[in-house]
Amino acid sequence: MNQNKTVKKIDFDSIVEVVRVFAPATVANMICGFDILGFAVDYPGDEVIMHRVATPGVRIRSIAGDDGRLPLDADKNTVSACVQMLLEHLGVSTEVGVEIELIKHMPIGSGLGSSSASTVAGLFAINSLLGNPLTKEELLPFCVEGERLACGHGHADNVAPALMGGITLIRGQHPLDVIKLPVPEELYAGIVFPKVDVPTRDARQLIKEKVFLRDAVTQWGNIAGLIAGLYESDYGLISRSMHDVLIEPTRAILIPEFYTMKQIALDAGALSFGISGSGPSVVAISRGKETAENAANRIQQHLTDCEIDSFKYVSPVNIDGPKVI
Amino acid sequence: MNQNKTVKKIDFDSIVEVVRVFAPATVANMICGFDILGFAVDYPGDEVIMHRVATPGVRIRSIAGDDGRLPLDADKNTVSACVQMLLEHLGVSTEVGVEIELIKHMPIGSGLGSSSASTVAGLFAINSLLGNPLTKEELLPFCVEGERLACGHGHADNVAPALMGGITLIRGQHPLDVIKLPVPEELYAGIVFPKVDVPTRDARQLIKEKVFLRDAVTQWGNIAGLIAGLYESDYGLISRSMHDVLIEPTRAILIPEFYTMKQIALDAGALSFGISGSGPSVVAISRGKETAENAANRIQQHLTDCEIDSFKYVSPVNIDGPKVI
Repeated sequence: MNQNKTVKKIDFDSIVEVVRVFAPATVANMICGFDILGFAVDYPGDEVIMHRVATPGVRIRSIAGDDGRLPLDADKNTVSACVQMLLEHLGVSTEVGVEIELIKHMPIGSGLGSSSASTVAGLFAINSLLGNPLTKEELLPFCVEGERLACGHGHADNVAPALMGGITLIRGQHPLDVIKLPVPEELYAGIVFPKVDVPTRDARQLIKEKVFLRDAVTQWGNIAGLIAGLYESDYGLISRSMHDVLIEPTRAILIPEFYTMKQIALDAGALSFGISGSGPSVVAISRGKETAENAANRIQQHLTDCEIDSFKYVSPVNIDGPKVI
Repeated sequence: MNQNKTVKKIDFDSIVEVVRVFAPATVANMICGFDILGFAVDYPGDEVIMHRVATPGVRIRSIAGDDGRLPLDADKNTVSACVQMLLEHLGVSTEVGVEIELIKHMPIGSGLGSSSASTVAGLFAINSLLGNPLTKEELLPFCVEGERLACGHGHADNVAPALMGGITLIRGQHPLDVIKLPVPEELYAGIVFPKVDVPTRDARQLIKEKVFLRDAVTQWGNIAGLIAGLYESDYGLISRSMHDVLIEPTRAILIPEFYTMKQIALDAGALSFGISGSGPSVVAISRGKETAENAANRIQQHLTDCEIDSFKYVSPVNIDGPKVI
């Protein structure tokens, strides 16, 4: 019934020949909000160029920027698998054919929502190609499913901000309840990715199943303070609130020089510093671009001194999510 | 140094002869925000009438409405002990004499912040009598100390909303960081106090020291949703967010007919239903007075059918906190 209803929306004559979509990287957790908060950044992000072709089906034409790590087989690649899933949902999988060029602008396994950015770019692209039969809200469950295919963990903490833009709150998972939070104008992220491997699965497995209630109370006091701080654009409150007493102590073990980097960021004037998603990327959340730049530069310099290679990104919070470019 | 600085503010000639102060009852936790959220109500509340007398020191003249349960001995009574503490802090304890009439309008041990209302009324009264040498923010630590004297647990979740009014967030305890949250206009509380004994200490001891992280994530997703809902005046989001998966299942055991009352409240259209503080009072948080009344009436009727006596209070969220009347 759902399929029939949606198929009607698609005007086959108006399907465009090609779209090029950019979808942003994301910082899940936003320091204190494990599994519920996340924000998108303007840079980096992934691109999908999607071509309409005569032969029905979904194929990967090329992947760039992945060092050959991602499968070109359309059944195994998350992006194409999601696009296929959406075409089936819309009831047009036997009629529509597309080929995908995927251009990755960020490293895989960096803790910046790499797979989410690609999935969101792919789904946003096919939706655009078909004349936007689905709203962003309707696309979201498909993005979550893509995350499940990619990470074995169907979570929205990266795909929600990547798709919706801005800062998102996942109030609940079942059913999915995502709320867009206000973005204080001067909020910047200074991100540094130390080139070490921290697979998401390992980072999750380190986390203990049970926590002290008193620590949970500290954590949710901070989460509540952060939400209020975002609504009030109160940078002092935002800074006081962005502390993670539960997850960071465990995950920081996997990240070289974590506590030194933290001190460097805070000394440089960052509002807060912590792990982006499951790491190893770290983020200095700052008021103003200059502070974010400064923090990121000093952190990168320290890593260089320690002979650890790194990438650095400085960006405001991305407001709009994916876009056709 | 602090004392000298503050003494100067007090103009002994302008100390008034008598003040009468009302301080509101409070609903701690606000369903999902254990130990961090709370709100004040217009009714019930406690009153303190404070008389200036010639002989220095603090004495209790009378207590009404306590069924003889509270000590008249000024050293043992929390209200007088707090007033004495403030006079000492201000460096005027050997010069100022007061006598206190305490009028309690709510039952002790009801889960409505009974001791907090009295403490806040007493401290607000002495501060008013002395020409307000301290701000509300400066009074707060004395109120917390009063709560420690009364309950053996120096917590701000009742005194903060009783003193500040409105809905308060205790972001952190050490140092104390209290934030006033916005109050959606149509928010009402339908409160029912079943006359059964649930000492706060017992209610706290029932709570487990450790919780599942996945439950904590559910809880803080709801807390974050509630804060956003308050800022947005989004009653749907407020309703979806006010669920307590951690504390209620344990404490509800101590409250007769809890789950039946919950069903009655939700059937009557309440946004949410739960325990006020450590109980046994329960609260149907509602949009509009009529719904709150309706829920409270039906709950009370059910308790009557079960031969359980109860009190009922219906009130909007109190905005101003204590006031001179």
